[in-house]
This record gives sequence, structure tokens and C-alpha cells, in this order.
Amino acid sequence: MIRPAPAIAAIPPTTPFIGPEQLMREHGLESLVRLGANESAFGPSPRAVEAMRAELERLSWYGDPESFALRTALARKHGCRIEQLVVGSGIDELMGLVVRAFVAPGGAALTTRGSYPTFNYHVSGYGGRLVTADYRADGRLDLDALIAVARAERPTVVYLANPDNPSGTFVERDELARFVDALPDDALVLLDEAYADFVDAGRLIAPEIDDRIVRTRTFSKAYGLAGARIGYAIASDAHVATLQKIRLHYGVNRNAQIGALASLEDEAFHAHVVREVEASREAYYALARELGLGYLESYTNFVCIDLGSASRATRVMNELLERGVWIRKPGAPPLDRYVRVSAGTAPMREAFAAALRAVLDEVPA
Amino acid sequence: MIRPAPAIAAIPPTTPFIGPEQLMREHGLESLVRLGANESAFGPSPRAVEAMRAELERLSWYGDPESFALRTALARKHGCRIEQLVVGSGIDELMGLVVRAFVAPGGAALTTRGSYPTFNYHVSGYGGRLVTADYRADGRLDLDALIAVARAERPTVVYLANPDNPSGTFVERDELARFVDALPDDALVLLDEAYADFVDAGRLIAPEIDDRIVRTRTFSKAYGLAGARIGYAIASDAHVATLQKIRLHYGVNRNAQIGALASLEDEAFHAHVVREVEASREAYYALARELGLGYLESYTNFVCIDLGSASRATRVMNELLERGVWIRKPGAPPLDRYVRVSAGTAPMREAFAAALRAVLDEVPA
Repeated sequence: MIRPAPAIAAIPPTTPFIGPEQLMREHGLESLVRLGANESAFGPSPRAVEAMRAELERLSWYGDPESFALRTALARKHGCRIEQLVVGSGIDELMGLVVRAFVAPGGAALTTRGSYPTFNYHVSGYGGRLVTADYRADGRLDLDALIAVARAERPTVVYLANPDNPSGTFVERDELARFVDALPDDALVLLDEAYADFVDAGRLIAPEIDDRIVRTRTFSKAYGLAGARIGYAIASDAHVATLQKIRLHYGVNRNAQIGALASLEDEAFHAHVVREVEASREAYYALARELGLGYLESYTNFVCIDLGSASRATRVMNELLERGVWIRKPGAPPLDRYVRVSAGTAPMREAFAAALRAVLDEVPA
Repeated sequence: MIRPAPAIAAIPPTTPFIGPEQLMREHGLESLVRLGANESAFGPSPRAVEAMRAELERLSWYGDPESFALRTALARKHGCRIEQLVVGSGIDELMGLVVRAFVAPGGAALTTRGSYPTFNYHVSGYGGRLVTADYRADGRLDLDALIAVARAERPTVVYLANPDNPSGTFVERDELARFVDALPDDALVLLDEAYADFVDAGRLIAPEIDDRIVRTRTFSKAYGLAGARIGYAIASDAHVATLQKIRLHYGVNRNAQIGALASLEDEAFHAHVVREVEASREAYYALARELGLGYLESYTNFVCIDLGSASRATRVMNELLERGVWIRKPGAPPLDRYVRVSAGTAPMREAFAAALRAVLDEVPA
């Protein structure tokens, strides 16, 4: 009798990501080597843990809806003002706000086919029309193709992750600046920098605020706070003011704010994680070479390994799951012949390597 | 150059609630007796704190996006199935999802003028048209007036908090059932039960799932986890499936899930908080009588005290803030002559009483 609004009723039921807990329940697994969601196997900063521990008993109080202390520290880090920062419960939430604010129902939003699916989820959920360009055959973003689609389809938002997920590839700052310049004037670039911590800052796009770009950052990757749900966007005063009109003011966990702030101050731990991730990538590259498999050079905390065909990659992923090793794989060509494995501790990497060796024999090319 | 979508540009900039941290910054206050946001001064359950403490180092992993363990426990508590439960980062988020799903742009949503403003914020933010009825002169919801407006305006969502915020008044189950029956068939009742823990369960609306009602609950009040940001909605399978299509799957803090689950199991602590809140209410009633002020009998963890006029209530609230005591007040007549003070520990209540006594002399009726 009571029906949702027509635009909502029209949305197909989709879930961007099935969680590993559901896979464990469905497959009757007691434990799982979690290498599927690009979480940090190296944990949160001990200083963040200590700061959050000390405040647990005060979790009965709402966190500051303005995240003032955290935004002050972030403004210092990024050389911007706090009016150019908005904190949310992870990039996923901020991405939803940007789509909601800038993609009118029926309007177009542009992404790369097979890129981060939560962007697509939001575009669909807010009644936008998704237009795409394909990855290049070498796994890199096809900036020329994106520009061509943008000129033809006039999207109001262009989504780009840099470094990219799921490919792990990276666009250097000058090339990215030329890309932004080549887009139509009224297109906003949603630049997802979830993995930017794994790249030297000098190679990222210039830190100056640019009205054409909303950059998003997270504490889920290098800072090891995925479960805390906290990220932020950097944008012009005007765009932040727009998001301020529609954001969930009391959506961020108080302890997430505290943990994020303490994490920012623990630069030694951050550097340690970046080194561990580098070691993980090298270990995966070596494993791929040993097994005669190709891979994409990664600028992130994960590596894509080439299984030669989409069907083999899917079977390998499924067989690994049965052995208690959880990875994911890109969903669209040309990347769908890869599996994607997250950085892990040495024991986790060895569990993956052992399972992959065993599975490859059973799943011929 | 880059502008938000017209519907978003048209939204006036509003913030439903200014946080106390901002007030402290603006007024140069070092500390504040927090009695303004109906938080729990009695803290989270020690068992919840212990459970969260033990898991802090694993905050680098995303929480289960399905909140399976928590929903399983909630299904047991409410005698429903997990397909009838959706967990979100507080009622505010769930309320936003319900408005987004059921109020089409241009469609109407009904509430009581001066009731919880975050509902209005969402209606405005999603392009709905807000229609209202007034509170009765005695501070109770005017159910007859709401029914009349509903029949005239045909809202798709009718918002009702029971017990009500900010009045603290309560509608008994039979009266509420008659109210739901009297509404147009296509109106969904968003029944905000944030304060239901302070009322005997037998007086609440029947626990059976009703397609006409989405009930929301929170861990922010009696469970003392406001800073964790976790709440849930109970609704029909169909309505939950609708929310599932648009919700933020990875929006809830992992430790919030763990703390909420442990809180549910600590019934003794819950009962202790309910008793403390009862003692607080009695203390505020006694204070009001001593000072010759009226008050509204409350079924919540706050009490409205009658200052006789809106201007006096506002001045008293502001003067209390200057003395380091933070309370709030209802914004619309006929309740705007009250101040609203949250339950507190004995020292907090005494700080409020002392400040109120001092202020009343300076702010004549």
C-alpha cells in the first residue's frame, strides 16, 4: 500500500560491495585472511589507539559536529583554511554528498567503467545518468577518452581516483592538470585520493584549492582506521558551503575524530605503514613473476595480478575463498582478467601465496 | 563557474543544531556542564566500554556492512526478523533515508511545528514541502490537528516522536494506534522512538511489524553511546529493502556495532540508567516547584521548565551559558516559553540549579 517515491522505486537493488562477513557466513568459514578490501593489515597507530582508549568512557557525548580540532589540524597539513574542509564518515559518504549536490536527476556523471562502484551506486541512487569511458588496455585511466565523453555528454561530475582503484595505476600531476583543463568548464572533478598517502606528495596535484576539483581523503588506508569511518573533502569555500547545507552534521563517531587527530600526529607510524605496503607490493610482484603471471605496477596498497582471462580470474578468486583467503577482482574489461590482492603482513602474504600456488594448478589458463 | 544542482542551490543554509563545542569557542568557555543534547550523563555500559577497548586495535578493518550480529540480537529483542531491521549511524541518518525514499521532491511531509528539527532539515534537503500542526497548549502533540492536516495536504511521511522531543510528553499505545488508523492510507508514519527506553515497553505501540510505520531507535540515549553514532529502524521487509537500496553500506563504525551489541546484553546497566534518569526528572520537578515555575511531566531524559515567556526563556538559556551551563529550548510556540534541561548526575543538576537560581533574579518574568 505504501510505496516509495517513484524515483526511488525505479532504482535497482544493488550492493556495491558484499562484505567478507557475509561471505564467511555463506561459505561456513570460521576465519578469513582479509586481503580483499584494501584495509591496512598494519593496524591503527598505537598513539591513535591510546587516544581513543582514553576517551571510550566519554562516548556517551556526541562528537563535535564541526570536527573543529581535526579540521584545524587538516588545514595545517594541507595549507588550506578550515572553511575548505568537510569531514564525513568515510569517502563513501562524502562522495554521496557530492553526487547529491552536483548531479541533478537526469543529469550525467562520468566515470571509468569498472572503477570504484560506490560512485556508480550514488549516481544511480540520486537519479543521475552514468556515462563511462573504458580503461586503456594497459590498465591505466584513458584520460583522452574521458575528455571525449565529457565533451559529448556534459556530465556535471567527473569521477577519478588517483591513484586509481582497482587498477592501482597513477596519473602524474602535470598530466592530471592538463586533463582538468581540457574538461568542459562546468564539470566538477571528484578526485578520490583514498590512496594518495602511498605516493610522494610532490607527485600529487598541486595543493592549491581549485574550484573545479573536490578532493577526498580517508583515514581508512595508510592510517589504518577503516572501521572508524572517517574521511574528508578538500574544496573551495563555496563547494564546502554547499555540502554543509546537506551533510549529516552528527554522522561522525566521536572516537573516530579523536583517533584521526592522533593518527595525523604519528608521522613515524605513517611512514612505517607506507614502507610495509611497499614491501607487500614487491612481494606480490615477485610472486607473480615466479608464477609466470603479469601484474600492474601499483601506487596503492594493493596489486592486480593478471590471470589471463576473466573466467580464470573469477575461478581463482572463488577457489581462494574456499581456502580461507579473501581477495576481490575488477568487474569490467579490460581489467576483469586480474585479481586484486591487498597489502598484508608477511604471514598473510604467505597464506595468499600458498593458496594461489595450489589453486593455479587446479584452474588451468 | 561550477554550481550545484538547482534544487540544492535553492536550499537555505541551516544547521539543525549548533554543537556545544562551537558555543564554547564563541563564548571563550573552558568547560561546560552539558545538559543540552539529552546525552546520557551516566556513560556507556562498562561492558560496552570493555568490549570496544578489546577491539580498538582491529579498527583497521571495516565493520560488517550488514551489522549481522547486532541485527540478530535486535531481532531477538524486538521479536522480528533481521530483514525487518536496518542499522545506521544514528536516527538522524535513518530519518534522512526515510525522507529520501518516501518524500518525492515537491511532495509533502508532516510534522509538529517545533518538534525535532533534523526531520525538517532532511525534508528541505530532499526537496520536500514541510507541512505542520501546532502542539496543544498543554505541550502535548495535537493528534487531531495532525490528522486534519494529513487529510488536507496528503503527506507521504508523517513524523512523530514518542515520547516526544522537545516536550517530553507521551502518547499511550491505544491512542497512537487510533491515530495511525485515522491517517490517509498512503501516509507512512516515521515513529521516532529515541526516548522509548524510558517508558515501560507495554505502553509503547504493539511490537508487530506494521507496513504503515517505520520505527527508529537509538543507542544514544539510555545506552549512553551518542558519540558512537548508531541507531536502527524497524519496518516491514519491503520498506527495509527500499532503504537497503540507498543506504550507506559502510557508514557505521565497527566499534559502534561492538559497543551496541555489548550494551544490549547489559540489562542491569540499562535499568540503572533508567533509574538515574527518573531521579533527575524528580529533582528538576522539585526545583521548578521550589522556584514557582511550571514544568511538563516528562517520559524522557529531559524536562521542560516553564519560564512564562519566550523572551525570558531565551535570556535564561543565554545567561546559563555564560555561567558554563548548557541547555537548549524549544523554538516554536507554544513551547518556546520553556527551557529544556537534560538528565544529569547530582553535581551537574546542582550546577544547573545554582545557576538557574542566580539567573532568575536577574531575568525578571
